[in-house]
Amino acid sequence: MMQSENSVEDSLHIRKLEVTDNEKGFIELLRQLTVCDSVSDEKFKERFEEIAKYGDDHCICVIEDVRSGKIVATGSVFIEKKFVRNCGKAGHIEDVVVDSSARGMQLGKRIVEYLADHAHSMGCYKVILDCTEENRPFYEKCGFKKKEIQMVKYFV
Amino acid sequence: MMQSENSVEDSLHIRKLEVTDNEKGFIELLRQLTVCDSVSDEKFKERFEEIAKYGDDHCICVIEDVRSGKIVATGSVFIEKKFVRNCGKAGHIEDVVVDSSARGMQLGKRIVEYLADHAHSMGCYKVILDCTEENRPFYEKCGFKKKEIQMVKYFV
Repeated sequence: MMQSENSVEDSLHIRKLEVTDNEKGFIELLRQLTVCDSVSDEKFKERFEEIAKYGDDHCICVIEDVRSGKIVATGSVFIEKKFVRNCGKAGHIEDVVVDSSARGMQLGKRIVEYLADHAHSMGCYKVILDCTEENRPFYEKCGFKKKEIQMVKYFV
Repeated sequence: MMQSENSVEDSLHIRKLEVTDNEKGFIELLRQLTVCDSVSDEKFKERFEEIAKYGDDHCICVIEDVRSGKIVATGSVFIEKKFVRNCGKAGHIEDVVVDSSARGMQLGKRIVEYLADHAHSMGCYKVILDCTEENRPFYEKCGFKKKEIQMVKYFV
C-alpha cells in the first residue's frame, strides 16, 4: 500500500508549462475553473510565446501525471514592478486549479508553494491572490491571510 | 467663481507617467498610499525603463497640476495574458492615490476611468483591483462590483 502511494507521488512531476502541454489536457483542466473554449495548437503557441517574452516575470507551473501524460494541476504568478515599497515588486497568483480526479493529494498546496517561492526568489515583498470565501481556509493553510476585497468590472 | 473653477479643472492634465516625474513629487504622492522611501533619479529612471519595456501592457497614469508642476493623482494598470477565457486578458489596477490637498475634485474617478478604458482598449474581458471595504463605495461609483476576497503573504 505504501509502495503504491509512493508510486503515485513519484509520478506527479511539478514543472513549468511547456509549449506541447496543449496536447496534455492543459486547457481542459482550466475549463474546470472558468469559461475556456478549446484552443488550437497555433493559438496556444502564440499565447505561450507572448507570455514567454516576460521570462521569469510570468511563470505558469503545472503538475503532470507522467503515468497518464495528463496535466492535473496548474497555477500562474506574474511579477509586478512597482515604485512603492522602494521600487518593490509584488507577485500576483492567478488561475490555480486541480483536476477533480486528483483532489486530496495536496497538489493545490504544491502549486501555490511553488508560485510563492518563485515570487520570493524574484525579490517580491509580497504575493497576493483573489479567491472565494469558500477557498479561504485552503489559502490560510498555504500561509496567506485575508486582507482586502476584490472589485471587478466586466467588459463583456 | 465659475471661471475660477474652470481654471482649476483646466490646469489638471491627465497623461502617462514620464521619466522626469520624480521631480514633480510622484514618489511623495505614493507615500500617501504606503511605505515609500525617496528614490534617486537614477533608480527612478531604471525602474521607469523596466516598466516601459512592457509597452501598453503596463500603463501608469498621472494627473499633473500644471500651475504648480506637481503630480496630484496617479494609478497603474497592467495587462495579464491568460489562457482562460479563450486566451483572454485581464487588467489589474494598482496603486491609485490622490493627493490629500486635491480631494473632492473627482480625480480618483478620472484616474480609474482612464485605467479601465486603457484595459478595455487593450482587449481585456475584465479589470480587477483590490481595496479596503472603506473604499468600496468609491469603486462602485466607478462601475465596479465586489466579487472575491484578497489574500496576501508577506515575505518581509
